[in-house]
Amino acid sequence: MEDKKANVEKLLAKAKKPGLDAMELHPFYKGKVEVTLKCTVRDFNDFAIWYTPGVASPCRDIQQHPEKVFEHTNKGNFVAVVSDGTRVLGLGDIGPEAGLPVMEGKALLFKYLGGVDAFPICLKEKDPDKIIEIVKALEPSFGGINLEDISQPKCFYILDKLREEMNIPVWHDDQQGTATVTLAGLYGALEVVGKNIEDVRIAFVGAGGANIAISRVLILAGFKPEKMIMVDSKGILNKDREDLNTSKTKEKWNMCTISNSENKKGGIAEALEGADVCIALSKPGPGTIKKEWVAKMNSDAIVFACANPVPEIWPWEAKEAGARIVSTGRSDFPNQVNNSLGFPAIFRGVLDVVAHTVTDTMCIAAAKSLLKSAKKKGLSDNYITPTMDDTDAFIEEAVACGMQAIKEGTAKKKLTEEELRKSAGEKITRARKLVHLAMKKKIIPKAPK
Amino acid sequence: MEDKKANVEKLLAKAKKPGLDAMELHPFYKGKVEVTLKCTVRDFNDFAIWYTPGVASPCRDIQQHPEKVFEHTNKGNFVAVVSDGTRVLGLGDIGPEAGLPVMEGKALLFKYLGGVDAFPICLKEKDPDKIIEIVKALEPSFGGINLEDISQPKCFYILDKLREEMNIPVWHDDQQGTATVTLAGLYGALEVVGKNIEDVRIAFVGAGGANIAISRVLILAGFKPEKMIMVDSKGILNKDREDLNTSKTKEKWNMCTISNSENKKGGIAEALEGADVCIALSKPGPGTIKKEWVAKMNSDAIVFACANPVPEIWPWEAKEAGARIVSTGRSDFPNQVNNSLGFPAIFRGVLDVVAHTVTDTMCIAAAKSLLKSAKKKGLSDNYITPTMDDTDAFIEEAVACGMQAIKEGTAKKKLTEEELRKSAGEKITRARKLVHLAMKKKIIPKAPK
Repeated sequence: MEDKKANVEKLLAKAKKPGLDAMELHPFYKGKVEVTLKCTVRDFNDFAIWYTPGVASPCRDIQQHPEKVFEHTNKGNFVAVVSDGTRVLGLGDIGPEAGLPVMEGKALLFKYLGGVDAFPICLKEKDPDKIIEIVKALEPSFGGINLEDISQPKCFYILDKLREEMNIPVWHDDQQGTATVTLAGLYGALEVVGKNIEDVRIAFVGAGGANIAISRVLILAGFKPEKMIMVDSKGILNKDREDLNTSKTKEKWNMCTISNSENKKGGIAEALEGADVCIALSKPGPGTIKKEWVAKMNSDAIVFACANPVPEIWPWEAKEAGARIVSTGRSDFPNQVNNSLGFPAIFRGVLDVVAHTVTDTMCIAAAKSLLKSAKKKGLSDNYITPTMDDTDAFIEEAVACGMQAIKEGTAKKKLTEEELRKSAGEKITRARKLVHLAMKKKIIPKAPK
Repeated sequence: MEDKKANVEKLLAKAKKPGLDAMELHPFYKGKVEVTLKCTVRDFNDFAIWYTPGVASPCRDIQQHPEKVFEHTNKGNFVAVVSDGTRVLGLGDIGPEAGLPVMEGKALLFKYLGGVDAFPICLKEKDPDKIIEIVKALEPSFGGINLEDISQPKCFYILDKLREEMNIPVWHDDQQGTATVTLAGLYGALEVVGKNIEDVRIAFVGAGGANIAISRVLILAGFKPEKMIMVDSKGILNKDREDLNTSKTKEKWNMCTISNSENKKGGIAEALEGADVCIALSKPGPGTIKKEWVAKMNSDAIVFACANPVPEIWPWEAKEAGARIVSTGRSDFPNQVNNSLGFPAIFRGVLDVVAHTVTDTMCIAAAKSLLKSAKKKGLSDNYITPTMDDTDAFIEEAVACGMQAIKEGTAKKKLTEEELRKSAGEKITRARKLVHLAMKKKIIPKAPK
């Protein structure tokens, strides 16, 4: 008991360290991304090629052949990371300036893990229709849009409208991104415990944008909705939940009608009873999910406790209660399910084949590819997805996603698998090479400690 | 005569070369700028500092102390290069996609010459009020706004409104930028011929945004409006030009009332008679300005013939007609007056002291600094401003501009001259170092020819 308490204290102290380091290193570097040149400057005469008068020729060429903007500019590799700062991390509506460190961080991950040139766009505008207007107006410069940390329910409306009205892929990472990596983790976990997709009973704890998107993608991947149960703050979703039969909660109401075939009622405890899998993206723990509830899950139970910074239940508690595989959002426990495994490589594939959208089936292809990469290294209770240092896994994920886009007819550029692998691989390795070179030559200075 | 014809043909062929090279090199590099990391990634654990969970601490810090966004992010070095593509170079309204190569080129110059992280934002929106709304919404991410290639007269309205309503500097390079470098060139030329600012008679050929801004800045710098004459497509501006007494042409009407004290009438010929200086930013030549008109200028005449791609009069023709100093916008003649001598260093200074605006007096300080740098190398008929390879001139210009901002009370950060020189110098040299390193290590590949 004393040991465990000490352990918890150690973990909580450890959890505070990144924040302390961040407060020291953010002002030291004053920003996480910068803009640099992609083309040669042999001497100052080259400016006559890159700027006036030479640049007029590519301009005219694009005017006559609009698709050539992808040949003459970096549009095809630019992604806008757009936020209005209304739901940043778990911090709530902290405003667009305070959200900028997160969006810059996202841009960093996009480049380092996916070779994507993402730029942070924090908007001083909260009205959803105006946000839509602004993002639509940005289209000429970008090859894709990543919406981030926009509050509910407007995030759904903004995403739907933009996907309808823009010709470039628009993605909300908190929805499809989270769904992709969760599915990948679940694939791995089910392989380890030897259960079938069609048979497993899944309890979703939390009914926010992420769990709604996960359930949708899982159903498309072959999981059975009638074997799913979802719990929101008022209890289990079921056909008698008239409070959810409204136009503003249509995604939840849909779950009321297609899931929970036994029409169970109650809370998290009842939802977990007899479940094979628990997918929790709800409120930070510990204690949101109790040990005794996990104890009533089926044998070889799989628990995804993904609240940040503290999971709904401590992993060791879940294990003591009988769970076999436990996954969290944290890097200091095994089986971290992290969106960084998704968006950088998915966008890499999408941009390389110039797809105009990211479909759920492309997300499933990405998740299957992550499973394949993890299997190569050998799955186990503590290893259900690739880790972030597995560069090949990212390249293969980009390939899987891009090839699926070509198959579905959403891609303008038809590459062969080999061509796509080469293109994605080069861009990802090049991005890291540039960073490491800049570090080595002290253009990126050494951290003060 | 034959010789001259051959010479003209050679020059015209030479003038076409950058366009041909551009058509080959733009698709080779597929873009001129990219986004890269500014901070260290020692290993994957650093992501916990740069992204969740660590990043939450700087976010909260900015929420509590809004000015700290300049400490924790790269906002202070991000500039948006914004265009709606309605007046790109001399090409007219070619649209935002076709304008992207120019805006990327501008971003390249910003970085290479000024160490500024500029990002090209091409807008699919032509309505001036909506453009204003969009640019205002972008404020949280940027330390400054560079408007570019937006058609008249909306460019004036957009600039004025944004300067009024934003807390970061907003700049229209076709106005203040052109005024700064023209003033610098004029300072140099007047030193060479030994004439005084208060005495010179200036004829402006063209009355567009650029010449209007130049005349305004020149008057502020001590040139006498009553000794100025301006010509538009309908002739000399004078007090009887009732066609200009409208709310849409108030800048021109102002010139009607303050310039041309002799109430001269006529066209370019009459305007040039007895003038010491000709500043032409009108329609491409040759032949817009005739030799015999230049012949009637005063002795030691100074001719700025800045239309692109072909100046209003060929430099050798102006010289034959008696002009002593001739300047153009082209790099293949002496005395190139180029905006690249202005905006990168001016923004460097402005950003380093966190100024909230760029005043005309800051532009004058920048021009004086350019004069000082040129004098160090030795002024002559063929050398009136520094050239683009003179790194020190850029650094000194940034210092002059930033110190002027501090003096005027528009700067949030009070640096000493030495501190500013260090800061500006480091950023400019660092930017080039990164590019050359990437070239050397073939991360930026060699041009195919």
